[in-house]
Amino acid sequence: MSRTTLMAAEIAEIPDVIARQLDALDTYLEAGRRLHQDGTRGLVTCGRGTSDHAATFFKYLVETKVGLPVASIGPSVATVYGSKLRLAGFACLTFSQSGGSPDLAALQQAARDGGARTTAVLNVLDSPVGEGADLVLPVLAGPERAVAATKSFVGMMVASLAIVAGYLNDGELLVALKSLPDLARDALGRNWSHAGPPLVRANSLYCVGRGLNMAVAAEASLKLKETCHLHAEACSAAELFHGPVAIADE
Amino acid sequence: MSRTTLMAAEIAEIPDVIARQLDALDTYLEAGRRLHQDGTRGLVTCGRGTSDHAATFFKYLVETKVGLPVASIGPSVATVYGSKLRLAGFACLTFSQSGGSPDLAALQQAARDGGARTTAVLNVLDSPVGEGADLVLPVLAGPERAVAATKSFVGMMVASLAIVAGYLNDGELLVALKSLPDLARDALGRNWSHAGPPLVRANSLYCVGRGLNMAVAAEASLKLKETCHLHAEACSAAELFHGPVAIADE
Repeated sequence: MSRTTLMAAEIAEIPDVIARQLDALDTYLEAGRRLHQDGTRGLVTCGRGTSDHAATFFKYLVETKVGLPVASIGPSVATVYGSKLRLAGFACLTFSQSGGSPDLAALQQAARDGGARTTAVLNVLDSPVGEGADLVLPVLAGPERAVAATKSFVGMMVASLAIVAGYLNDGELLVALKSLPDLARDALGRNWSHAGPPLVRANSLYCVGRGLNMAVAAEASLKLKETCHLHAEACSAAELFHGPVAIADE
Repeated sequence: MSRTTLMAAEIAEIPDVIARQLDALDTYLEAGRRLHQDGTRGLVTCGRGTSDHAATFFKYLVETKVGLPVASIGPSVATVYGSKLRLAGFACLTFSQSGGSPDLAALQQAARDGGARTTAVLNVLDSPVGEGADLVLPVLAGPERAVAATKSFVGMMVASLAIVAGYLNDGELLVALKSLPDLARDALGRNWSHAGPPLVRANSLYCVGRGLNMAVAAEASLKLKETCHLHAEACSAAELFHGPVAIADE
């Protein structure tokens, strides 16, 4: 255990994080039902870094399962440009681990001023983003100490799945959600030692994904930057022939 | 002249492309006025590669100047997931040079089936995307022969500015638009020879931008991939501390 990094220890907590979320499932389902009852016309998200990648997962999930459009809005729209947003009938979801970023709080407030109902998907509830939201959904990941966030990312994706299950009243998705702690335990128990060696010779690489997995590719590339100091870039499988292949041929 | 690349020759056409667009200004302005009269609640865009970066410029422009949210929807939402989109009250803008991509045509059709009014911002009008749109806005860039598209990217940004000028009936923006051909001539006439040498030693780099310039950073990184075979990645100035700085320190 003495050789286990803080990051690895936090990854090992993921099955328990998901189990805690399932104990609080009604909170997420109710948030989803509410989006449906409100006749939500579209959604906007805001987030930074890892949490923004969770928002990308939420975006693909809502667009493919619900069919409503989801726009990721940059905090600069509020903080640099001072725009007056027009979001009547929209829901705004802010994804944040710490809830402490003033620019996320500012964009959330601009969305609220523009008529959106605001929901914060947060790990640290007692925070500026939490205080400024109409509704707070807890990620329940516990203290995130490693510099590269892990368990809160997974927690935000699970919250997203549960919100959509509530919106659609989707029994199949609920059953799938309940299998996640065991699936996560199984994944953690496997031997991943083959994954590292091919990366040792690389100093630059692409993480390729598509649809829902685009969010995972984005997060993988960020983790490879943060933890391996590799220039990894996420790329949609559909865009490979626009640019990346030109380099990979070499 | 014999040493001029096709790409450089096409870049040199940009001031004339913009002048042609200004001759057709009413078409863009009318499209913008129509978005306003229709009571558009939000917008979605679709595009690939360079044209998708032009859509990113449009997104920031609309969000900061008009305040309506703009969601970029991946073609896979229609082609892989077969989602039923719900876009009543939305406008869908497809950005494409060739108009020939079947997946863009499929997403445009899915948006139309979902209730969106569809506009195609196109360089090649006689194309599947053009045929499937409610309204076609010509980019007027002329044949784009170089592999790395240039003049159509600028043309799509100019079209975006003109659409927003029409939506807002913004006289100041109109005056600025009319100065663009001269500004482009001035920019092309300058000495850019200092820009290359710092890149010669790099094999990996970040193109940093924010807000409207995020689109330009994205396009610059794609061009550096396509033409210099450099692993360039676009990065928001606001996200620099999430990952990239960890590498740049080395």
